[in-house]
Amino acid sequence: MERILTVRDMQARAEALRREGKRIGFVPTMGYLHEGHLSLIDEAKKHSDIVVVSVFVNPTQFGPHEDLESYPRDIDRDEALAASRGAGLMFYPSVKEMYPGTQQTWVQVEDLTGVLCGASREGHFRGVSTVVTKLFHIVKPHVAVFGQKDAQQAAVIMKMAADLNMDIRILVAPIVREADGLAMSSRNVRLTPENRKKAVILSQSLFGIREGLLKGQPAGALLEEARAAISAVPGAKLEYLELRSYPALEELTELRGTCLAAVAARFGDVRLIDNVMIKI
Amino acid sequence: MERILTVRDMQARAEALRREGKRIGFVPTMGYLHEGHLSLIDEAKKHSDIVVVSVFVNPTQFGPHEDLESYPRDIDRDEALAASRGAGLMFYPSVKEMYPGTQQTWVQVEDLTGVLCGASREGHFRGVSTVVTKLFHIVKPHVAVFGQKDAQQAAVIMKMAADLNMDIRILVAPIVREADGLAMSSRNVRLTPENRKKAVILSQSLFGIREGLLKGQPAGALLEEARAAISAVPGAKLEYLELRSYPALEELTELRGTCLAAVAARFGDVRLIDNVMIKI
Repeated sequence: MERILTVRDMQARAEALRREGKRIGFVPTMGYLHEGHLSLIDEAKKHSDIVVVSVFVNPTQFGPHEDLESYPRDIDRDEALAASRGAGLMFYPSVKEMYPGTQQTWVQVEDLTGVLCGASREGHFRGVSTVVTKLFHIVKPHVAVFGQKDAQQAAVIMKMAADLNMDIRILVAPIVREADGLAMSSRNVRLTPENRKKAVILSQSLFGIREGLLKGQPAGALLEEARAAISAVPGAKLEYLELRSYPALEELTELRGTCLAAVAARFGDVRLIDNVMIKI
Repeated sequence: MERILTVRDMQARAEALRREGKRIGFVPTMGYLHEGHLSLIDEAKKHSDIVVVSVFVNPTQFGPHEDLESYPRDIDRDEALAASRGAGLMFYPSVKEMYPGTQQTWVQVEDLTGVLCGASREGHFRGVSTVVTKLFHIVKPHVAVFGQKDAQQAAVIMKMAADLNMDIRILVAPIVREADGLAMSSRNVRLTPENRKKAVILSQSLFGIREGLLKGQPAGALLEEARAAISAVPGAKLEYLELRSYPALEELTELRGTCLAAVAARFGDVRLIDNVMIKI
């Protein structure tokens, strides 16, 4: 698979592809690919002639005390995995290539970004929406695929693309889970074996909430019970467990339409997120 | 000349043009075209196969007490003028077409936007950079031309395009002036005949500063003298007259490189701006 390192080369390649009438599918990632990412490539392939996968651990979406340095990286493995699923191009820029000077321009999506992960990760979504805008201008895709694992991110990107009239179809693909239910994440490899087992409480709690809601049980009690269950796991530190409308991420005054049950918790120094979508 | 009213039609037309290998030149305007705008069309023509002129009085760049309602409009005259200079397409969307729902996404360029016009027009440049990003995604130009009359706007757009990796060449064309030196502006028609004559003080002051600086006279004294001259005109209300680096718009610690002398003042309820670039 061809690996492109510079913005200029990627833009020229994208422009040439578009001139040939090729539809470009795009899967932006932070690398250390797993089956979740690969399912996004599968989805992108369905809607395009060539799939570009970007691997870029974007510093502007990490807070000062977050895991930018320890985020796992293995570009050769990523390239082999992406190629095995039929991706055609890998865009792999350096931090200096993406941020050659002082970044003074930021894309900010209001309202959606102050809740859930945005409440504790200040500036995170500003970094995400800005880097995704940059990547869109570099890769020039017709269609871009994001994972539902990052449900809030997907909501932010969809709203951003609509508000800024980006002529790009945004698709969101389902979460891929391990056999025991844990949502796949590049960060899972950083869990201790013990915490890896404990982390299943997140998906179990979400599945329990979904089941309860579909049976008509009261949301408040289901959420309280799940929060207590997670907090009772030794070493688990719950950050939030909430039920919100989707994709507007508003507090629910009534259970109707598409709801998102979303959770974030720490196991040791590893922060995990998960969610389920519930159609009522 | 063809007039396009919707985002969807404009994007489809732009996409088709690009597929044919045509280079798209773009001149975004708020309409009520004058010779200044027409010179931007001339410049765009030099660098493209087809020139798109947009006419959109963008509400998000006007403050609550500004002249959004009274901003002059005449689309048929605009179309005839643009056609007479060889523009190929007019993009003329409604406010509802550009902002169909709640705009939650904003493009913000830091540092450049808190000074000069940005100091008094809160949110103005956020509105400008956001609408220009939207228009770029709709018109899909290879090259876009802005006027030096709005020197701060040009600096903001150039930085935004670079920071967001927009694959668009940004050109800045010189100010076009009336015979007496007044910078052309759509707002000039709103001046009373008396204020129209008085307004020449702005360009005269800027030319005086440029001449003095090139002769080696001290900047501080030149600025003070010019401020006093403008303030002495009955009915003129000086907002700022400043000397800054260009395009970084920083305060000058020494006179070197490209400097911008910029002024803003009110004559009655009409706010005018003007500037000169000085290469030292």
